[in-house]
Amino acid sequence: MPHPRPTLPGSSFLFGGDYNPEQWDEQTWVEDVRLMQQAGVNAATVGVFSWSRLEPSPGTFTFDWLDRVVELLHEGGIGVVLATPTASPPPWFSLAHPDALPVTEDGTRLTHGSRDTYCPSAPAYREASTRIATAMAERYGDHPALLAWHLHNEYGTFCYCDHVAGAFRSWLQRRYGDLDALNAAWYSAFWSQGYGRWEEVLPPRRTQYLHNPTQSIDFRRFMSDELLQAFREQRDVVRAAGSTKPITSNFMLPTWNHLEQWSWGEELDVVSMDHYLDSTGPDGEAHAAYAGDLSRSWAGGRPWLLMEQAAGIIPLHGSRMAAKAPGRMLRNSLSYLARGSQGALFFQWRAPAAGSEVWHSALVPHAGEHSRLYRETVELGAALGRVAEAAVPPAEGPLVPADVAVLWHADGWWALEDGALPSQALDYSDSVRSVHRALWQLGFAVDFVRPGADLTAYRLVLVPSMFGMDDAAVAALTRFVAGGGDLAVWYFSGVADEHLHVVAEGYPGRLRDLLGIRVDEFLPLAAEEEVRLSDGTTGRVWSEAVETTTATSLLDYAEGPLAGRPAITRRDAGDGAGRVSYVSTRLDADDLRALLATLTADAGASPVLAAAPPPGVEVVRRRGADASYLFVLNHGDLPVTVTGDGVDLLTDGTAREGLPLAAGDAAVLREQAAGSPWSVR
Amino acid sequence: MPHPRPTLPGSSFLFGGDYNPEQWDEQTWVEDVRLMQQAGVNAATVGVFSWSRLEPSPGTFTFDWLDRVVELLHEGGIGVVLATPTASPPPWFSLAHPDALPVTEDGTRLTHGSRDTYCPSAPAYREASTRIATAMAERYGDHPALLAWHLHNEYGTFCYCDHVAGAFRSWLQRRYGDLDALNAAWYSAFWSQGYGRWEEVLPPRRTQYLHNPTQSIDFRRFMSDELLQAFREQRDVVRAAGSTKPITSNFMLPTWNHLEQWSWGEELDVVSMDHYLDSTGPDGEAHAAYAGDLSRSWAGGRPWLLMEQAAGIIPLHGSRMAAKAPGRMLRNSLSYLARGSQGALFFQWRAPAAGSEVWHSALVPHAGEHSRLYRETVELGAALGRVAEAAVPPAEGPLVPADVAVLWHADGWWALEDGALPSQALDYSDSVRSVHRALWQLGFAVDFVRPGADLTAYRLVLVPSMFGMDDAAVAALTRFVAGGGDLAVWYFSGVADEHLHVVAEGYPGRLRDLLGIRVDEFLPLAAEEEVRLSDGTTGRVWSEAVETTTATSLLDYAEGPLAGRPAITRRDAGDGAGRVSYVSTRLDADDLRALLATLTADAGASPVLAAAPPPGVEVVRRRGADASYLFVLNHGDLPVTVTGDGVDLLTDGTAREGLPLAAGDAAVLREQAAGSPWSVR
Amino acid sequence: MPHPRPTLPGSSFLFGGDYNPEQWDEQTWVEDVRLMQQAGVNAATVGVFSWSRLEPSPGTFTFDWLDRVVELLHEGGIGVVLATPTASPPPWFSLAHPDALPVTEDGTRLTHGSRDTYCPSAPAYREASTRIATAMAERYGDHPALLAWHLHNEYGTFCYCDHVAGAFRSWLQRRYGDLDALNAAWYSAFWSQGYGRWEEVLPPRRTQYLHNPTQSIDFRRFMSDELLQAFREQRDVVRAAGSTKPITSNFMLPTWNHLEQWSWGEELDVVSMDHYLDSTGPDGEAHAAYAGDLSRSWAGGRPWLLMEQAAGIIPLHGSRMAAKAPGRMLRNSLSYLARGSQGALFFQWRAPAAGSEVWHSALVPHAGEHSRLYRETVELGAALGRVAEAAVPPAEGPLVPADVAVLWHADGWWALEDGALPSQALDYSDSVRSVHRALWQLGFAVDFVRPGADLTAYRLVLVPSMFGMDDAAVAALTRFVAGGGDLAVWYFSGVADEHLHVVAEGYPGRLRDLLGIRVDEFLPLAAEEEVRLSDGTTGRVWSEAVETTTATSLLDYAEGPLAGRPAITRRDAGDGAGRVSYVSTRLDADDLRALLATLTADAGASPVLAAAPPPGVEVVRRRGADASYLFVLNHGDLPVTVTGDGVDLLTDGTAREGLPLAAGDAAVLREQAAGSPWSVR
Repeated sequence: MPHPRPTLPGSSFLFGGDYNPEQWDEQTWVEDVRLMQQAGVNAATVGVFSWSRLEPSPGTFTFDWLDRVVELLHEGGIGVVLATPTASPPPWFSLAHPDALPVTEDGTRLTHGSRDTYCPSAPAYREASTRIATAMAERYGDHPALLAWHLHNEYGTFCYCDHVAGAFRSWLQRRYGDLDALNAAWYSAFWSQGYGRWEEVLPPRRTQYLHNPTQSIDFRRFMSDELLQAFREQRDVVRAAGSTKPITSNFMLPTWNHLEQWSWGEELDVVSMDHYLDSTGPDGEAHAAYAGDLSRSWAGGRPWLLMEQAAGIIPLHGSRMAAKAPGRMLRNSLSYLARGSQGALFFQWRAPAAGSEVWHSALVPHAGEHSRLYRETVELGAALGRVAEAAVPPAEGPLVPADVAVLWHADGWWALEDGALPSQALDYSDSVRSVHRALWQLGFAVDFVRPGADLTAYRLVLVPSMFGMDDAAVAALTRFVAGGGDLAVWYFSGVADEHLHVVAEGYPGRLRDLLGIRVDEFLPLAAEEEVRLSDGTTGRVWSEAVETTTATSLLDYAEGPLAGRPAITRRDAGDGAGRVSYVSTRLDADDLRALLATLTADAGASPVLAAAPPPGVEVVRRRGADASYLFVLNHGDLPVTVTGDGVDLLTDGTAREGLPLAAGDAAVLREQAAGSPWSVR
Repeated sequence: MPHPRPTLPGSSFLFGGDYNPEQWDEQTWVEDVRLMQQAGVNAATVGVFSWSRLEPSPGTFTFDWLDRVVELLHEGGIGVVLATPTASPPPWFSLAHPDALPVTEDGTRLTHGSRDTYCPSAPAYREASTRIATAMAERYGDHPALLAWHLHNEYGTFCYCDHVAGAFRSWLQRRYGDLDALNAAWYSAFWSQGYGRWEEVLPPRRTQYLHNPTQSIDFRRFMSDELLQAFREQRDVVRAAGSTKPITSNFMLPTWNHLEQWSWGEELDVVSMDHYLDSTGPDGEAHAAYAGDLSRSWAGGRPWLLMEQAAGIIPLHGSRMAAKAPGRMLRNSLSYLARGSQGALFFQWRAPAAGSEVWHSALVPHAGEHSRLYRETVELGAALGRVAEAAVPPAEGPLVPADVAVLWHADGWWALEDGALPSQALDYSDSVRSVHRALWQLGFAVDFVRPGADLTAYRLVLVPSMFGMDDAAVAALTRFVAGGGDLAVWYFSGVADEHLHVVAEGYPGRLRDLLGIRVDEFLPLAAEEEVRLSDGTTGRVWSEAVETTTATSLLDYAEGPLAGRPAITRRDAGDGAGRVSYVSTRLDADDLRALLATLTADAGASPVLAAAPPPGVEVVRRRGADASYLFVLNHGDLPVTVTGDGVDLLTDGTAREGLPLAAGDAAVLREQAAGSPWSVR
Repeated sequence: MPHPRPTLPGSSFLFGGDYNPEQWDEQTWVEDVRLMQQAGVNAATVGVFSWSRLEPSPGTFTFDWLDRVVELLHEGGIGVVLATPTASPPPWFSLAHPDALPVTEDGTRLTHGSRDTYCPSAPAYREASTRIATAMAERYGDHPALLAWHLHNEYGTFCYCDHVAGAFRSWLQRRYGDLDALNAAWYSAFWSQGYGRWEEVLPPRRTQYLHNPTQSIDFRRFMSDELLQAFREQRDVVRAAGSTKPITSNFMLPTWNHLEQWSWGEELDVVSMDHYLDSTGPDGEAHAAYAGDLSRSWAGGRPWLLMEQAAGIIPLHGSRMAAKAPGRMLRNSLSYLARGSQGALFFQWRAPAAGSEVWHSALVPHAGEHSRLYRETVELGAALGRVAEAAVPPAEGPLVPADVAVLWHADGWWALEDGALPSQALDYSDSVRSVHRALWQLGFAVDFVRPGADLTAYRLVLVPSMFGMDDAAVAALTRFVAGGGDLAVWYFSGVADEHLHVVAEGYPGRLRDLLGIRVDEFLPLAAEEEVRLSDGTTGRVWSEAVETTTATSLLDYAEGPLAGRPAITRRDAGDGAGRVSYVSTRLDADDLRALLATLTADAGASPVLAAAPPPGVEVVRRRGADASYLFVLNHGDLPVTVTGDGVDLLTDGTAREGLPLAAGDAAVLREQAAGSPWSVR
């Protein structure tokens, strides 16, 4: 699928991060350039929160200081990712346009004093945003330091005001045409919510009791589209000003789920990601892999850009920040690169002296140059320089070859967030992450796929907890199986259509025939409850009264009200077609991994290495222009030896006779011959 | 006490539930009637949330579809419980009357998009409600299918707007006459709250710190009366339209405590109850019994109607829905019937395809006819048909004879919800339910009684945690004891008067003389704290420095600061009078049951069966026109045998030589001779 | 430091409490005076919440009832502490002045119906407050019963309305002069918050995400000053009316931290404290000592007044009230007196019959005269009479001699409450209380000192978790060490300047040189995480990557990522100078006590008794005019013997041959010769 879009330079990986010169004096700017050069930084993102400095009063622009910053960076050989500052309008803006301040679900109009204090649908906001974007594009659009445009930052602000209500109605009119269709889709006969005139239709503002879940998910879909429209307006003025550099805006994980990424991915020249770990230890490593695979997939398999990662901290449950362990900055960065990132950017270059995020970490921490963090920054810069050749994408074929794909869509997440579900323990992100983590532990490369997408490239497709599905999604899965692909589906998938209407006559109505089963009742488990399956496997959270029609039971429930009934089933779809498995409970991590080992083996899916590496060692292959590169990351506590026909770019060491890799170390091996056998022991 | 009110048909039990044809097409209606007939359904409640379909724009009524539904049901032999749809005004209503939207305590005006989005005091709402009630009464008031009127649904919506403030002031003027009386009752000298003009008086809107508890409870009392007035207005137009069918509106438990049920019970032709279990296992069974006994009592001992129960789910702590175990639907339904219900209705007939409550269960679940739930529905319908003769109420005498009564009043619940109490673990519902559960386990039939009511029918009256009491309540208890009745009172009862003023000179001031004790200090226990009594009994939550005056100590505290002081006392009120016990701590379930075994025995109260049935077996006697019926419900895991002079209506089996009853099974035995001896082993 | 301010009478200790005659009839007033006399009460605080009774309509004063109350008290020999009632405006006030009702952070305007329902910046409120204060001062200012003026009650009400916004701007203009300085101090370049006009500056109202922490702390500082200004206005009208009695307003602990107490202390004739325990057991005793030492310190070492303590309850976590154990009322009261209080006043004299605080306790409880509580009240009154001579303060020299001081400032608390910190477990109050508790356990007298204050009186100064420090604070500590004083600093101190800007180049930037260390990274610990130090000491919550420069390590971390690096350091500041210790983690209580035992010994700080008393026995020395008094409080479970050259005022017993002190008992020993040796065994 050719993409005639501007791309990032492929000659090397970008390294650097958000830089906020507006917080510092010119002397510090000079010092910053020195430290950047010393660390091999080649990209600085400026402008993200500079609005009040760039436009101190309405329509008056003060670019001189930014000119100087850009010039200093350019002279220092550091490229600029230029952000429009529209994520945080200045105080003068909200004073002048109180109607452009965001309104919460319960009608509270917020004030400035933080960030993101705007209504995305307010005309005054949209106008002010394109005005400053235009001014910046005109001034910097052809600057030689410019690497890319970073429009806005982390789109995702919600509002429930009348501007938004009007925009929501227009969106609904486009989606449904008339009120009859809306009433049907929203199932408004329930609780007497039938709409007779468009003016009656509102965002899901605070109401007496439960919201209408279809209204809620439509509002989520609308907000994503509305924000995308705001993005497009900025993009268009940047292009109109003549700038030809690639344009991005950044997604964020783990918790930021306000955008429908597939449709956004179609509009972005470069997909970029702000990724924050939420746990220390191996789950954190798996999470980095998860974000990398998602980003590459949202980018259509093309290179993407890790726009932000935390330099030194991992926020833990209970609002405590853990310090990132030594070496982790390098290993995590390589994991993102291995999965297709064109760079390792950070939030942020220099730690702020004060402000709301004074404790966010930075490549130059409060302690300055003489610090573990900055030392690791310098080491990382050197490492990225050594692996630069891997940045050149392949002329054809996948960037990261994968036999296994996981279905992913924001709808799945939204559906499990806004309704009164049979169990509050149903958790889309957890479902997808647990499946991905098991595959990561087993050493498989994984793509994520959009519902309805062509799946012929894969041997195995997994569907975790995708509650609603439209016709196209079901048809694509059906075609895939008919064509020989193996499919595995988890509980609470395919239960409803795209309007979240439950399909009648037995769960999961959308996939009943494909799976060869029928469920007449869900039996959610209580908080601490668990249920044993026939081989000792443990299920939690959920169980279902499964009856097989054309499938057979792989494992039965062994206790409780479902004892003797199927828990995990498989249907052989027949001659030339694949096998379809169904998992009706949440398996513990070890059991899930064991199941996926079987499913991948049966599907003939190939892991990155034929022989699984030791636990804690991650291996990923990224294809380049002239060679492919094996990234080996030893997250474990023990040294390992990598053996194969390749050379480690980081150390120039050859692996032919075995390359030792200490605990915590990494290697990036240029493969001398494609498909040569590798072992890690 | 003769009730010249319309009653439900007594010839058989009603079976069916809420039916929402507005969610379905006509083909489904036809199918529904077929399935209802197949299951023996004879009652469908329609209209509950149909307002936007019945009146799609102001004053324009579209009854044709409902005509067709009612006709279909009627042709199918299914009666109609017709609900006015006023619990959920349509979107057009709130757009036209923003002042009729409810306002929260903190001034937030809610929007439509859920249910119950109205201010009960708004003139526009009241007017619209009586308008549609009138139109429905005129159209359907003499329809032969009509079984009863179900006005509104689950009254209980609160509002704090100016309409409500005005109505509250009028209510207060009626209650207190002048501001001096209000200031005295509200103890407004505390914190300088003296009111000088009526305009100063407000609902308990959000304020800086703790509310005035008397203002809070008066607002609760007012809201109950205000909602009752709204009910009366609908009732009056229905009657004015000439309909003579019985009129009800439904209470709800376990958590819905917005109405003062005794005063409502006086206005309802038929008391009806929506009852939702909140736990699986035996506590759930006890809870069904609790709701049944309360409903019958609120109905003045007359038959009532179980308007809603969940077909298949039990919501658990932690927002997870447990599936009801097989067989439970039948046993629970029989428990309600045994306690006086004229039917077993459900929420709901057919599961909705979407909407906020898509996961609520139904007699026809998403899976449709071919499902465990519908199969049990058919079985239940058959069973109800077999026991129909028990539906005919006795011409005189109690429906369910009981020797034991428990004092109950919403004031007791409200008083423990809205104040800054000595312990947040004080919990009215828990106190009453724990006493009732112990009696249920011991096999006693129980009535609930209103404070001040005549108690001569009982041998033992129990008073759990009734904080405030008026003169009449105390006088009734005193008369009861003087007449030979036994009384037992639990901690935090009789401490205050009806304005929640603590009676001076020693707790519990209202009952000090009657109990023969005096308490000068409460000693609430910490969260995990427990205190041992002299026989090893365990107390939690609460303890008191009790001194006996005319009572003697039954059990002392054995440890802690109260060691050696009375914990449970008893006063013998003298010649011909009864005994008065006081329990100053919260006993564990086993200890409470043991205490009640003693108290009931001493009082000469008779359990349903002379010999207690095995644990888990529930036995209730309901009296009919020509016979009495022994309901035996085996909730346990072991089979039992029922022996006595009777015939099981469900199986036609005779119990004379012993009727085996498997685990989970039930029997409804027509007693051949009143008072014949029974055993369950 | 001479204080030419009016003082409380020093001839005896005040005993009594808040008295609310407006809640009772005249007969009860007479009875109250009788009970007060019987108990030796000599002070009643009246007027606190009497506004609606004193001024039932605007400008109409009804003082006759209060005249009668004051006269009754006076005739009964009971002095009056006269409160202005401005903490709770009457309903008529808020109806007339809706703009004077407080507005929450999210814009909700509160209503009356509780207490403190006013905006402190509203002109109408300020005017009404001085009007009634004037009227009261004119009427009662020279009444012979008058002991003191108690203006307002527990100042601390916040508001975010436009009145407040205007006052905040004026305060900021005075503080910063121009917007450039404000922008710099607020670090407004972060998140584009640069202010271009003063109108743009707002209180920290509800916003989208994290607040600006400097804006937040400045708002706290402003509110303290604004409330102080309101206090000054009342004080000025009282003085203008000619009254010469001492004027106070009361602080509150443990949670009430809305005032900057040092600046308030300068304006109050008498510092007074409302102190509520928050735990039973020994931590409660330590907490009483903490409040006493803080109050005396805020009062500049002069006598102060315990204005409120709870007569009978201790609120526990989980909203349960524990009853105070017998004897505790006396021991706690003596602890406050020992630390400089001129009295033991209580909230409250008589328990209210109703209202929001009906369960607050009182000297005359609901049970009345015949109660344990009132009996202990009588005993306490007698005890206070016996120790009256100790009330006369010394002509010169400290009231309570102390060698050890702890740095304290509201800024430290505020800084840890309003920001997004590296760990939510950072807790200023906990940090200070844990250090004070350890010193209390070790038997040291402790002063608290203001940052920047002269420290020459002390041998050891402790700095727990004082995040921000200005130049003066650092200079004072530096001078102290240079002069030979020993200093110990705890983690998260001196990290930032007074605007909460982190000082660059290594933590803790303000104290790096003084401590002889440099920290380049904080490593907060996870919720249950602990870290062992080299001698087995346990650290929690926090750790730091410490490197020593001129200090040496006392204890290293023994495990985790910091293993082998310093955890506790000490720098010997050289010839004639003191030693400076740094503690980089939160020590467990026992380990902290052991550390402080070492630090105090090394510093040559003297405990009250040379030989430590047994655990649970508290010993404090208060100096009087002609003698000094040793307060010995046996909180423990075992009897002890006090031996020394003194006489117990409570029993007249001499301690020369050993005075036995039973568990729970107390002695107040007049020391016959200053510095005579004492032992408690």
